[in-house]
Parts: sequence; structure tokens; C-alpha cells
Amino acid sequence: MKSNALQPSGKALVPFVSVDNMMRLIHHIGVEPMLTALAGYVEDDFRRWELFDKTPRVASHSDVGVIELMPTSDGEAYGFKYVNGHPKNTKEGLQTVTAFGLLADVYTGYPVLLTEMTILTAMRTAATSAMAAKYLAPKGATTMAMIGNGAQAEFQTLAMKAIVGIDSVRLFDIDSKATEKVARNLASSGLTVVACASAEEAIEGAQILTTCTADKQNATILTDNMVGSGVHINAIGGDCPGKTELHRDIVARADMFVEYPPQTRIEGELQQMPDDHPFTELWQVITGTAQGRRDARQVTLFDSVGFAIEDFSALRFIRDQIRDTDYYMDLDLLADPDDPRDLFGMLMRSA
Amino acid sequence: MKSNALQPSGKALVPFVSVDNMMRLIHHIGVEPMLTALAGYVEDDFRRWELFDKTPRVASHSDVGVIELMPTSDGEAYGFKYVNGHPKNTKEGLQTVTAFGLLADVYTGYPVLLTEMTILTAMRTAATSAMAAKYLAPKGATTMAMIGNGAQAEFQTLAMKAIVGIDSVRLFDIDSKATEKVARNLASSGLTVVACASAEEAIEGAQILTTCTADKQNATILTDNMVGSGVHINAIGGDCPGKTELHRDIVARADMFVEYPPQTRIEGELQQMPDDHPFTELWQVITGTAQGRRDARQVTLFDSVGFAIEDFSALRFIRDQIRDTDYYMDLDLLADPDDPRDLFGMLMRSA
Repeated sequence: MKSNALQPSGKALVPFVSVDNMMRLIHHIGVEPMLTALAGYVEDDFRRWELFDKTPRVASHSDVGVIELMPTSDGEAYGFKYVNGHPKNTKEGLQTVTAFGLLADVYTGYPVLLTEMTILTAMRTAATSAMAAKYLAPKGATTMAMIGNGAQAEFQTLAMKAIVGIDSVRLFDIDSKATEKVARNLASSGLTVVACASAEEAIEGAQILTTCTADKQNATILTDNMVGSGVHINAIGGDCPGKTELHRDIVARADMFVEYPPQTRIEGELQQMPDDHPFTELWQVITGTAQGRRDARQVTLFDSVGFAIEDFSALRFIRDQIRDTDYYMDLDLLADPDDPRDLFGMLMRSA
Repeated sequence: MKSNALQPSGKALVPFVSVDNMMRLIHHIGVEPMLTALAGYVEDDFRRWELFDKTPRVASHSDVGVIELMPTSDGEAYGFKYVNGHPKNTKEGLQTVTAFGLLADVYTGYPVLLTEMTILTAMRTAATSAMAAKYLAPKGATTMAMIGNGAQAEFQTLAMKAIVGIDSVRLFDIDSKATEKVARNLASSGLTVVACASAEEAIEGAQILTTCTADKQNATILTDNMVGSGVHINAIGGDCPGKTELHRDIVARADMFVEYPPQTRIEGELQQMPDDHPFTELWQVITGTAQGRRDARQVTLFDSVGFAIEDFSALRFIRDQIRDTDYYMDLDLLADPDDPRDLFGMLMRSA
């Protein structure tokens, strides 16, 4: 019984991690340790890929952007993320991508965590990229080219440092101010940071090429002649229909690794290719049922579009981390009458 | 510019209506006036049905229940609801259905409202039922049979009183305690309330038959011989695959009205019928392009499963009502760096 009928019971309360608390939690754990831990959660969930309830994200497109819901479940927990993608937003002082997410108990259907996911998405995307690169990048890779120096660039770079072990990053963006921002933010990271004047210059000597640009169009950030043998391409920015970053010839030449094929087919670089274009599912590389990098000369391509299971991993991580901490507040989100059938009575008694 | 870089800006804040604030708002407006106003919002949105981005709900089923996301958009606003359905929950002291919802600006992708929707769903479901009954019930209907006396029963009854003008309700539930609860809650409603010992008794003299039971199975709450001519059946409880309330013969005999056919096909009473079974879309009745009740002897059936547009209407209503009130709090849900591309810098500066 409740001690006070007007106070919500514990069942009515959902832990909520605000932006402020997410930032406090990240500083408490440390950015690189958290990226490493997140990559572990993502890798664990890719390893049990087959048991997840999987569905392509549910997208609502408009002329200026997209709003998406990305649900999944492992049978015990259910998670979903709300995320928008509006490239024009930055010109108006808003984020291209904002997100929040929710984790619920499959057995009761009750939410157990609501959290900001704008920052968390940048963290999980970087962790996933680095986790994939661990399997796909050439052994001993030391240098990454980071093309597109927007909101994700520092996270991508630090994840590759923490998880793959790079010691150098070469930056390029068509807006040099964006490059200056990343260089400044990474100045004390322990990495050698080189600002470059062109994409060609950025990829010189790099074993990992990360593209993360935001234009909602079929762009050509990398052309075929720019990409030599033995590199790993981590293509992050192409993530919706009509939005790609690589010239078709590179995609044709590379060995492609994907998250969830039905989604990559319509959102990734794969949308440029015929239906029978071969690819490998990343989870199969992680479970050992498919080969990752085969030899030193191979060009590997992680055609990343972001999948709900990665958000699920991030939600699990946050749920586990905030227990017995003050990095959350309780939100009175769920109606919880003493008698579950007496919703109306609860309403009347609150008058 | 922000006055304090560590305080979230207005753009980062999302108005949140808690359960407590929802109850305060309902009392401020009044239950019946709010049901009437909600029915108006739902009717307005049914009238512009064709311009909505419509999709069947995205359901994740388990052995014990379902978790669903119900998104829609009118091109200017985007809304979705999270809702679970777990009939076994009441035995464990939990709600069968809990819900929350979100409204966002399509142009920016930024959320503009987060709200509890457990109570609001009961309100909008009742408002929608009564709005449909206004077009489908026999003229001058005075009496409703309310079969299934769970959490929705009082809301359904008061909406039929406020919008259709009934003055009498006849209650039945297999659990007499549930009936006692509803009778008690409606004692001062101004309605004649009759507790009945069987479904047969409850429907005596009733022009509107509302079924709202929760078993996740193909049940037969009404058999064919129970239903005379000239009644309107408001079937609320059958709302997922394998869950129906009416004997097939009634469904075959009635003129069926539905919300969104692709969803009703798999979730409503319609799932009992062959693919070519005729039905009318409710929005067409409201716009005048299809006929509602044709004559006094006809049996009409609103095969209600609940559709995203009804939640969208409810979200619009709440957004409009809370402006310049204290029925909400601001939630720090969205990361909003001064420079949208400098998410990492915002994180670092918060340390």
C-alpha cells in the first residue's frame, strides 16, 4: 500500500537520465573507458544477434528531414530510440540529430529507463564503428582520416584510439571552422592531430577512412582513385534513402560489411548497388561464422547506418551504470492506481 | 546566447506532463467537458484523415503481452505513443495498459511535448467511441450496456453521456467487484446505474452495447442471439491478433465501421472474417462521403482497435491546453550546444 494515495508509488516512477546527468555520468566513467565499455555491450549483443526481434526503423520523412523510431527486443528487455535527422538544422542553431530512448520490461510492459540519447547516440555510434574496425581494419592501424568534422568526429576518433589503438588522426571538412573545432577539442587527447586542406590530403597514410558527412543527397566524399589497397572504410554518414558518401566504384571494389541488411539496403551505400551485390553481416564476423579481414591488401567497408540493437546495448549500459547513483531522477510517467482496474477512481481521488 | 553555458537553453527543454499534472489538468477542465473537447479534436483529425502519414502500429509481442509504438504525422506535427497491453498485469497489481506519448515539430525534428498517456488513452478511447456513436448509434439512444468493467468503463460511460446523451448504463463483468467499483465511481454522475448479473441482463433495453474486456484470446462476450436489431455495438476490447470479443455471426450480420483497415484487419473483429468482408471507414462517414447509420433496424459495429491519429489528436489537445499554465515541467531531454556541431565541446565544458 502507498503511504500517501496522492504520491505516486515506485511502480509509477521511471528513472530519467537528463542531458546534464548523462554528461555527469560520462565524466564520472571517463570518455574513453565508457566508449570501450559501450563497445563491449554492443559486441555482446551482436554475438546474440539471432535472438533479437529485428525490424527496420520506422521512418517519417519530410522535405527537410526524417523522424525515426528504432525498436528492438531480446525477449527480456524492449528498447526503442526516437531520433531525428535534419541536416538544415545546424544553419538554424539546432542539432542535426537529437534523440532519446527508452528501455522497458517485456514481462510487464513497464518502462524502466528514459534517457537522453543525443550524446549517447554519438557514443554508441563511435563504439560500434571501433568495434567493427577491431575486426575489419588492417592489423596495427595507427592513423585514421576523419572526413566530416561535425558533432560525431571527436567521438569516432576517441573510440578508434581507445578500442583499435590509433595514435594519429587526419581531419578534413569543407568548412575549415569545423576542422578547427575538432583539432581544438582533441588537442589534449594524446593523439597526433593533423588538419588537412582536402580529403585527398586527409587520407594520405591512413589505414582507416571514416566518412561522417550530413548532406541529405548522393554525395561523393571519396572517389575511387583516392582509395588504395589495404584500407578500412568506416562510412557513417550515409544513413537514409538518397544519402550516400562513396563513389559506386569503391563500393563495388570493397568487401562490404553491414548491420541489418533490410535496413542497409535502403539506407546505406548498398542502395547504390544491384540487389545481388554481396555483403557480410557483421554479427557473423563476431560470432566467427564469417570471415572479417582476409588479407592486408583487401579494402573493407563498414556500411554503417546505425541499428536499433546498438541503441539497445547503450540503454542496457546506462541502466546498469545508474543503479545506486544520483545520475538520474524519478519521473512520474506511469499511472499506478492501488487497484489497477480503478484508473478512474484514482483520478477522482486526486481532486 | 545562453546566460550560463551549464544551464540548458530553451531549445533543450521539452514540456513534460506527469500523471499528477494530467490529473490536475483533467480536474481543471472537468472530465465531461474534456471528453467532449477531445472528441472534437479527434473528429477534426478524422475529417482530414487523408493528409496523415499512416502506418499500422509497430508491435513487439511476447507470451504475456505486447509493446507497441503508434506513430503518425500530419506534415506539421509528428506524434507517437508507446503503449503496452498485458492482461495478466492486473493480477500482479499493475495496469494492463500503460502509455506515454510525444509530439514533435516535423520541421526541426525536435520534441515539443512528452506526456503520460495511460489516463489520456482512456480519455481519447472513450472520446473516439462516443464520437463514432454520434454517427452510428440509433437516434435518441438513452441506455448503454457496459460489458467489461475494468479501467476504461467509467470513461466510456461518461463520454457516451457527454457526447451522445445517454442517461442510463447497465454494467456487467465476470468479476462482480469490478462492477461494484464502476457503480461506486459513477454513483454521483447523474446517470442511472444498474449492476447486472449477466451480459444478457446488461443488454436488455440498451441501444448501445460497449464491450471492453481484456482477455488475450478469441472470446465470445456477445453471442448472436443476444443482439437484437437497431443497436450499435462499440467493440473496444478486441485490439490485437488473436483477441476478439464477438461471435462471428454478429460480425457477419452487422454493418462494420473501422478506423484504419490494414490495422483492423489483423487486430479487430475483422480478423474473424474473410478478406472480402465489407466495411466502411469511419473518416468517410465523418466527411460525408459514406453513410453512417442508415435506418433504425440496422446493427452497426464500431470495430475499434485504436489508431495513432486518435493519440495525435489527444497530444495536440494537451499541447494546446498546457500553454501558459503550470500543468507541466520542463525536461532537460535534448542536448543543445551553442554550436550545434560542437556536441563534444559541450560535453567537455560541462566537466
